[in-house]
Amino acid sequence: MTKLERIQQWTAENSLDFTYISDPTTIEYLTGFASDPHERILALLVFPNQSPFLFTPALEVESAREAGVSFDIYGYLDHENPWAIIADKIRQRNNHPTTAGLDKIAFPVDHFEKLTENLTGVTFNKDISGLIDSMRAIKTEDEIQKMILAGQEADFAFETGFKAVKPGVKEVDVVAELEYALMKKGVMEMSFNTLVQAGKHAAEPHGESSTNVIENNQLVLFDLGTVHDGYMSDASRTVAVGKPSDKELDMHKVCLEAQLKAMDAVKPGITAEELDKIARDVITKAGYGEYFIHRLGHGIGMGTHEFPSIMQGNQMELKPGMCFSIEPGIYVPGFAGVRIEDCVYVTEDGSKPFTHTPKNLIYVDK
Amino acid sequence: MTKLERIQQWTAENSLDFTYISDPTTIEYLTGFASDPHERILALLVFPNQSPFLFTPALEVESAREAGVSFDIYGYLDHENPWAIIADKIRQRNNHPTTAGLDKIAFPVDHFEKLTENLTGVTFNKDISGLIDSMRAIKTEDEIQKMILAGQEADFAFETGFKAVKPGVKEVDVVAELEYALMKKGVMEMSFNTLVQAGKHAAEPHGESSTNVIENNQLVLFDLGTVHDGYMSDASRTVAVGKPSDKELDMHKVCLEAQLKAMDAVKPGITAEELDKIARDVITKAGYGEYFIHRLGHGIGMGTHEFPSIMQGNQMELKPGMCFSIEPGIYVPGFAGVRIEDCVYVTEDGSKPFTHTPKNLIYVDK
Repeated sequence: MTKLERIQQWTAENSLDFTYISDPTTIEYLTGFASDPHERILALLVFPNQSPFLFTPALEVESAREAGVSFDIYGYLDHENPWAIIADKIRQRNNHPTTAGLDKIAFPVDHFEKLTENLTGVTFNKDISGLIDSMRAIKTEDEIQKMILAGQEADFAFETGFKAVKPGVKEVDVVAELEYALMKKGVMEMSFNTLVQAGKHAAEPHGESSTNVIENNQLVLFDLGTVHDGYMSDASRTVAVGKPSDKELDMHKVCLEAQLKAMDAVKPGITAEELDKIARDVITKAGYGEYFIHRLGHGIGMGTHEFPSIMQGNQMELKPGMCFSIEPGIYVPGFAGVRIEDCVYVTEDGSKPFTHTPKNLIYVDK
Repeated sequence: MTKLERIQQWTAENSLDFTYISDPTTIEYLTGFASDPHERILALLVFPNQSPFLFTPALEVESAREAGVSFDIYGYLDHENPWAIIADKIRQRNNHPTTAGLDKIAFPVDHFEKLTENLTGVTFNKDISGLIDSMRAIKTEDEIQKMILAGQEADFAFETGFKAVKPGVKEVDVVAELEYALMKKGVMEMSFNTLVQAGKHAAEPHGESSTNVIENNQLVLFDLGTVHDGYMSDASRTVAVGKPSDKELDMHKVCLEAQLKAMDAVKPGITAEELDKIARDVITKAGYGEYFIHRLGHGIGMGTHEFPSIMQGNQMELKPGMCFSIEPGIYVPGFAGVRIEDCVYVTEDGSKPFTHTPKNLIYVDK
């Protein structure tokens, strides 16, 4: 069964007249057609016993066809009312629809009001977001293959970036060097803004690369990822310039121990929160518990934050094909920050990482 | 009156007990705090007669404070239920809220259901999206100042990019050179993926830069923009390598005439659709009407697609402070594509462009 047939099956199982899917990434996942419609309207309509249709700005109809969409594609022009057209096309397949599914996590309230105004009598009583999340959470071999290639790109980025780190160099210059090297290889999209943070600046886990100058005897934190054919990598390493202090070395040692212990523990059946606790216990026992202020990890795939969330309170059991980050961190405000992260995929009996850059403390200028 | 006070006033005028704002860019616009919460919950709650509060992942509370948010900030941890906490904090300010405003264009149906479950008795009967769009559409001097700087960065990017264009060079290599030069200047964020498209590849207005090799005697289309302090630039130029054909030269000439005529026509009082028609008529008259397949322009500011949309059917009158693109294009499938674009801001008696790179056809290898 194709991914799209699974949506069709769900629509039939739930006795729905149709399912409306609005999320551009989900539409790419289901059809292969990647598009950012901005404020324009993009939708995939799935029916229990008829072929689906794609609704898109007229500008994109050709691209959708080229991307391999073989069923009906309806385009609309900027001055037309997309909601009226969608409602009309739905009624052409089903004259009196009454129940429908919707990806409620992606669809804005404003669009919902406009759609339902044009489709009076239809109740959107089923949310398909959960099914899509669980489908996307288990990667196929083909998807994992793309993520392995994205991981190799991240490893290459670390290699290039580490070479650019020297006392006196700005954080942003290191970013420039590694992204330039990636672009020269044809890697044109990062999965998020690359982070290179030196010294106490690395204690802000959601900060950004800046014009801060890297000094001697500091730790420097890298967090980066690329997009390969729609699939993402995401990895962190913390490296040393000169001789960091004993406390910084200890932070790195503890963080690495937590990361390795969690990596070793991944296998089908363990829950997300158990995995979080394994890493957290190591850090807490070493006295840094209060400085590990985020969850252990997040799912990854076509988005950088998918299911499963590896955190306290999530009792979801890990299964083969799930992909997520393992990224303990220790952030001592005003002093230093350490994070070590690989994304992994769960196998039948353990896990495999997408990135292979060494994790022991690297002295980049040695 | 500050921007936030305007929201407070609207809440009072509409006799609402509070207004819930969810869009991260709007929150940045109103408070100065920039944050991408991903799947976490970020919200700004505004009350008619009490101070507002910001609700954010705990991880971000410190950054919000540093960004200058001086009113209450409530954080939540990943394992807590954000909706229950928000409802609780609202009730601390108003024990029995019954009516509320919401930015419906940004808020997903799923979140809406969870919020209303925790706030039974509240009707979200007013959409504040329209007010926010019209506030954001009229830029302050401070905002225009940032966009002028973003425009200068775009001009610099063209200068660098044009130098990199040669027969035999890949489109993506040109992107690499210009983005590297920007990063070395500390410009770390593009407003969208830079487009460099050569020859017939430029006939896909929503395509992307590829490993296509630029050949001699071609047109090459650039479309790029940077983000300066949250505000964006966006500009296009089409340049020549060697000697393009007469038809290509004619396409450029017609497109430029359309662009200049529309630029000249901008002034307070003209409507968006009138402006679109001025450029479109030039192209239609020259016989290329069917190849100009998108609107003339879009508003720009903190987003690349804001109000006003410069298109047929939009009778909105242009006003001083509005900022938008003027970007006619001619795309002949399988042959070539031309687009020339500046973003401008409307002044009391005309308009001024944010970008100043020459628009006559530049022969980059001469």
